[in-house]
Amino acid sequence: MTLAQSPAPPYWAVIFTSQRTDGDQGYAAMAERMEALAKEQPGFLGLEHAGDASGSITVSYWRAPEDITAWKAQVEHREAQRLGRETWYARFQLRVCKVERAYGFERT
Amino acid sequence: MTLAQSPAPPYWAVIFTSQRTDGDQGYAAMAERMEALAKEQPGFLGLEHAGDASGSITVSYWRAPEDITAWKAQVEHREAQRLGRETWYARFQLRVCKVERAYGFERT
Repeated sequence: MTLAQSPAPPYWAVIFTSQRTDGDQGYAAMAERMEALAKEQPGFLGLEHAGDASGSITVSYWRAPEDITAWKAQVEHREAQRLGRETWYARFQLRVCKVERAYGFERT
Repeated sequence: MTLAQSPAPPYWAVIFTSQRTDGDQGYAAMAERMEALAKEQPGFLGLEHAGDASGSITVSYWRAPEDITAWKAQVEHREAQRLGRETWYARFQLRVCKVERAYGFERT
């Protein structure tokens, strides 16, 4: 897993936690495409993902809440959201958050 | 991975993303103990964790920012933080966030 670099707060985060249905059913290809597409969106700052077939956490970081709204409405992303509810996800939670404070540690 | 149940926003989230040093060195036992201890703290709402030996994401949810400050200062947790910097983590990022909006999906 790669840690996202992000600017000084405030900025915004979308925490997406999910449990999948059985089998791939095109999920891995879609996830890869959506990550590439997210990176092209205005205001995208970074993305972190961890998990396995049983469930995962994806956190994406954004400059402003309008950037999150625009990404949610992006046409290809909307189709992925539809397929997610139809096929890939047993359940999910999505949380839109304002990052108020942040700090990091790097071993020297 | 189990999804956390949480109340209607606003509430708070701590996003902790990390990459580990090699080997366990007591990490797994500490992580289990800290999760149990967090659940006993005032204002604790839930916790989600995903990852593997290479890196992980832990998101904990809290009622108010004071609850996060108190948990950070908890004596046993402070010792775990010290050992984390000394031994377990190659790098980490910690972000304190206010959850402004949330929605979920559950397959019926």
